[in-house]
Amino acid sequence: MADLKSQHLFMSKKLKTGVIGLGRIGQIHLANILYHTPNAEIVIASDVSATAHETAKRAGVATTVSAEEVIGHPDVDAVIICAPTPLHVPYTIAAAQAKKHVFCEKPLDVTVAEIKSAQKAVNENEVKLMLGFNRRFDPNFLKVRSLVAAGNIGEPHILRITSRDPAPPPLEYVKVSGGIFLDMAIHDFDMARYITGSEVKDVFVKGDALIDPRIKEFNDIDTAVIVLGFENGAIGVIDNSRKAVYGYDQRLEVFGSKGMAKAENNTEDNVVRYNNEGGASALPLHFFLERYEKAYRNCLQSFVDCVIENKPSPVDAHDGLMATAIGIAAGISLREKRTVAIKEIL
Amino acid sequence: MADLKSQHLFMSKKLKTGVIGLGRIGQIHLANILYHTPNAEIVIASDVSATAHETAKRAGVATTVSAEEVIGHPDVDAVIICAPTPLHVPYTIAAAQAKKHVFCEKPLDVTVAEIKSAQKAVNENEVKLMLGFNRRFDPNFLKVRSLVAAGNIGEPHILRITSRDPAPPPLEYVKVSGGIFLDMAIHDFDMARYITGSEVKDVFVKGDALIDPRIKEFNDIDTAVIVLGFENGAIGVIDNSRKAVYGYDQRLEVFGSKGMAKAENNTEDNVVRYNNEGGASALPLHFFLERYEKAYRNCLQSFVDCVIENKPSPVDAHDGLMATAIGIAAGISLREKRTVAIKEIL
Amino acid sequence: MADLKSQHLFMSKKLKTGVIGLGRIGQIHLANILYHTPNAEIVIASDVSATAHETAKRAGVATTVSAEEVIGHPDVDAVIICAPTPLHVPYTIAAAQAKKHVFCEKPLDVTVAEIKSAQKAVNENEVKLMLGFNRRFDPNFLKVRSLVAAGNIGEPHILRITSRDPAPPPLEYVKVSGGIFLDMAIHDFDMARYITGSEVKDVFVKGDALIDPRIKEFNDIDTAVIVLGFENGAIGVIDNSRKAVYGYDQRLEVFGSKGMAKAENNTEDNVVRYNNEGGASALPLHFFLERYEKAYRNCLQSFVDCVIENKPSPVDAHDGLMATAIGIAAGISLREKRTVAIKEIL
Amino acid sequence: MADLKSQHLFMSKKLKTGVIGLGRIGQIHLANILYHTPNAEIVIASDVSATAHETAKRAGVATTVSAEEVIGHPDVDAVIICAPTPLHVPYTIAAAQAKKHVFCEKPLDVTVAEIKSAQKAVNENEVKLMLGFNRRFDPNFLKVRSLVAAGNIGEPHILRITSRDPAPPPLEYVKVSGGIFLDMAIHDFDMARYITGSEVKDVFVKGDALIDPRIKEFNDIDTAVIVLGFENGAIGVIDNSRKAVYGYDQRLEVFGSKGMAKAENNTEDNVVRYNNEGGASALPLHFFLERYEKAYRNCLQSFVDCVIENKPSPVDAHDGLMATAIGIAAGISLREKRTVAIKEIL
Repeated sequence: MADLKSQHLFMSKKLKTGVIGLGRIGQIHLANILYHTPNAEIVIASDVSATAHETAKRAGVATTVSAEEVIGHPDVDAVIICAPTPLHVPYTIAAAQAKKHVFCEKPLDVTVAEIKSAQKAVNENEVKLMLGFNRRFDPNFLKVRSLVAAGNIGEPHILRITSRDPAPPPLEYVKVSGGIFLDMAIHDFDMARYITGSEVKDVFVKGDALIDPRIKEFNDIDTAVIVLGFENGAIGVIDNSRKAVYGYDQRLEVFGSKGMAKAENNTEDNVVRYNNEGGASALPLHFFLERYEKAYRNCLQSFVDCVIENKPSPVDAHDGLMATAIGIAAGISLREKRTVAIKEIL
Repeated sequence: MADLKSQHLFMSKKLKTGVIGLGRIGQIHLANILYHTPNAEIVIASDVSATAHETAKRAGVATTVSAEEVIGHPDVDAVIICAPTPLHVPYTIAAAQAKKHVFCEKPLDVTVAEIKSAQKAVNENEVKLMLGFNRRFDPNFLKVRSLVAAGNIGEPHILRITSRDPAPPPLEYVKVSGGIFLDMAIHDFDMARYITGSEVKDVFVKGDALIDPRIKEFNDIDTAVIVLGFENGAIGVIDNSRKAVYGYDQRLEVFGSKGMAKAENNTEDNVVRYNNEGGASALPLHFFLERYEKAYRNCLQSFVDCVIENKPSPVDAHDGLMATAIGIAAGISLREKRTVAIKEIL
Repeated sequence: MADLKSQHLFMSKKLKTGVIGLGRIGQIHLANILYHTPNAEIVIASDVSATAHETAKRAGVATTVSAEEVIGHPDVDAVIICAPTPLHVPYTIAAAQAKKHVFCEKPLDVTVAEIKSAQKAVNENEVKLMLGFNRRFDPNFLKVRSLVAAGNIGEPHILRITSRDPAPPPLEYVKVSGGIFLDMAIHDFDMARYITGSEVKDVFVKGDALIDPRIKEFNDIDTAVIVLGFENGAIGVIDNSRKAVYGYDQRLEVFGSKGMAKAENNTEDNVVRYNNEGGASALPLHFFLERYEKAYRNCLQSFVDCVIENKPSPVDAHDGLMATAIGIAAGISLREKRTVAIKEIL
Repeated sequence: MADLKSQHLFMSKKLKTGVIGLGRIGQIHLANILYHTPNAEIVIASDVSATAHETAKRAGVATTVSAEEVIGHPDVDAVIICAPTPLHVPYTIAAAQAKKHVFCEKPLDVTVAEIKSAQKAVNENEVKLMLGFNRRFDPNFLKVRSLVAAGNIGEPHILRITSRDPAPPPLEYVKVSGGIFLDMAIHDFDMARYITGSEVKDVFVKGDALIDPRIKEFNDIDTAVIVLGFENGAIGVIDNSRKAVYGYDQRLEVFGSKGMAKAENNTEDNVVRYNNEGGASALPLHFFLERYEKAYRNCLQSFVDCVIENKPSPVDAHDGLMATAIGIAAGISLREKRTVAIKEIL
């Protein structure tokens, strides 16, 4: 799939956005609006750090320390929330009440109640809410989804997702991350629902701390195999690891009554070298921002387009609710060593 | 890996064998001894069917209707048991008592007690017993095992096996097959132990009849995801289907602290065609006798070599016991929807 | 290789450029400067077409009908020449005399004399000249070159380049294109010199009009096999076609005393689908702007960096001269059915 | 493609053969008849070496020092000639006159006159003559040929053959080998005619001694790029090297008006390993007897079948004539540095 940008290159109608939070992800969205989303522009961005202000100013972007100022700015039509997770719902509700559309980073929240309150505010104020499950917009996964949706693999029977990070986060981060299920596997839970087009009914987890035993002190694990039951009868299995020394391993496969489709990794290049010792090829792209470069662009572009063209949000509050609910159920399954039904959570 | 035959092509020392059972697998072993195992020969073969006798006679092989005659034949040093599963243990014991070495098709039996009685007879009579877990001798899986054994992937964390048949067996066969775990997945249970070099500690199954609901009438399923806990801490996952429309899908992957190794399918050829609709490549080899052609030859060759060179059996009664025990545990897990420890079975 | 942009995202020092010619390639460079080259900006762009002016104005770029105005503009430090080929040298000389650095699309010219006059002007005025042989900056070819340069394949013995367009240009274009060697294969001639790090000594061509016989009326061909002799002793072979129905086929392979390295095509995605008919995979990226998206960005970025950091031009007038000389020699070889030495041309 | 053997496993009708020459290739054919060609058997084999007799006797094969005895043996219906090349034609003629069918190793001879005399004898005596161009029977190349023959790639425009040996032969062998074109590339000349289904019209060679300059003392080379013109208009290019350090490199690709088909190498296994340094895969099968194991079996089987079923020889004297003629023309092209027409040779 081509960069969506080229289709819009010199468009005149533009969505006016404000960005809340200029950490790593906030800067990515900022750069994508500036350089890769021709029908969007930035009015103002907020962050509490002075360094972030410097960076934004060099790119010609006005800044403030106040998220409220971004939400309340009269020229801002949509806010892009990249603040820490506990602030996602409060800012979403405030923006909705100010009649601003919202793009919010995942997860929307780690509790069902909070997500439902955001969902309520968005519905009542008739604004769009889109969650940043960017992987849905990756060309490989888009292709697999389109094959499944077109019936090319028949009834889905087995879904396999391999999702392994190149390196574990610092232990300080682990402590506040919400755990492997709500921090890392949540992407895979969303992907499982997206690819199969079916809700998850129950979840079973087997996991351990095989990379770094200290992670257990925070009641967390670093290696997991997660079995999902879907409402359409399919069975899913996700394998997660916090440390794949060969890079960021992001593959999936769906097997059904008429065939199978699998997405392999994107690699640094397509060169193979042979000498007397063997064949050597490139590793999977290591850094998530590089691996999902197009996904991030396509994702933000989809938000901008859904607002401008008044289409339904491609990833809405219900999607956020379900991904979080599966994550909560996975945590219970690990602790109680049993299959947990999603309806126990909702 | 080259066909082992060429190394032995004109050897003079030969193991004298008798074959019991000339069904599909029996005929394969017969042909392998005749044409591909230079240091073995056939003295006599038994079967109850007249057609089988005709076939064997055209190949110049003497025949009888009596398995006992094969076992008791003074020129026979080793018997190759390809009779129905319930006869595996009785014939193994009879052969051991007659001081004949035994190659027996899998599974040795579907009960722990029977396997232990065969194990006892073999040990007491100091003969070799090798089980026909041929897949261990496939060049791809041999290579993965050798990488794991050499420490190339570090400590194993996750093992994934995909094992899907091209088409389900007839329902009449299903009825007497012992079920998907003891008939089909038993190969994967053996492979899991072989690749990781570790015993399986517990098993959890999620499965269903997604291909043909009638299979449920026989308390069986056709689609399964099986999670294994290993004694070395690794977590394994097997996905099985009785019907992959694109062929016989036999892959595995082992992920560890230092890297990952995966075995892809063998395909009909290595040709790729491109036209304006896409790229087209060959399917996985469809027929198990073709897919595992070298594995069958190498497997029988290993038996013959272990007898002639008086080496330990590469796949012994303990291996048969453990594979069956995992299969029994898997059945309990499916019925009782819980993780089952292998020690509950033994 | 990551998009170079991210490394420079918020840089303050910027090269001030003017663009001459806003056709397809001109618009690509314009968009790359606007959105993907943070340390460059556009002062003014020229084109004779009113439509081009509209497009540029929507992107906020000042325009003129006069190339001279771009060259003479006091704020312009470097010009990017995307005008028709016959104007390349005149504009390059004018810019050099105005002490402006020059990025010029390939080919610099189709005659040796003209190229040498541009080379002279550039040298005398001590400005940079870089030619738009963008493919050198493609991540695959960069990787192969780096392997060769590091000695990983040993002494190069055989170079193979496959370069096939997805569709032939209109016959009207063919008429004025300079022929397949100076219009299309010139990229491959430059690549041959780049990958081997050696000058081409002689060339032999076998070619024909196999796709559309009408192309012969313009003394041109659409299918060619070109054999190159290199000064370091290596032998090269290029195969060209104007029409590969499966897409834009851009591969190369270098074989040497210590091994081999090959660059495969980039594909639309990394998804493979299997059904009962076979395996199906994505086609090579079809459109050259998409296939070489990163190459175009990296190429322009390299020009900007070489000016800002005062480094030698990575693709200079000598490179342009040699590529054109090989193209001219190839034309003679086709007409005279003999090996033509490059020194016959220079 | 499955081993053809299984289809014939217990057939009763058998072709009675005699083998002349028990060198490396002779022993391969001997083993294939004994173990892999169920509808053939060996009556007698000849060789001048005592060691060869020992080997054959251990396999239960009667031997003689006299090729004439094999040809004249009343029970022999077909001879398999694996003697040195200068003896191919004399033995073929003698066998034909004795009304014996002939399978003869390639090349039939290195001169046109000799080949024509063998052709005459075979025709007059109405026996089959098949040449051992075994590669035609390799599953990959069979598949490409069938795609071309079925029109799947349209009109062939470009044929590419890569044929590189893992190691050069000893210089003593080079001296008597007939040179790279008649010893090594002759397989590729036959393949070029087979894949395209068209006669070669002319040939141009560029080659050198890049691996070992001493080979030049014998007027030979070790590296070549060969351009072929076909009667159907297609253009072919073969690249040969006597030494690919990574193994036996045997690939080809045919490009046409409707698409492209390419045969990749067969590898030692289908395992890929990833660690922090990159991906590692198996090398191409190194040894020609292993790489072409199935091709050798299928080839001999085809000869046996063509005799038993009285079908035309799949590779006849004309095929031998043309391959040799192209080889002779290639030698002239190298010496005279010009395109040589095949009709200059015939």
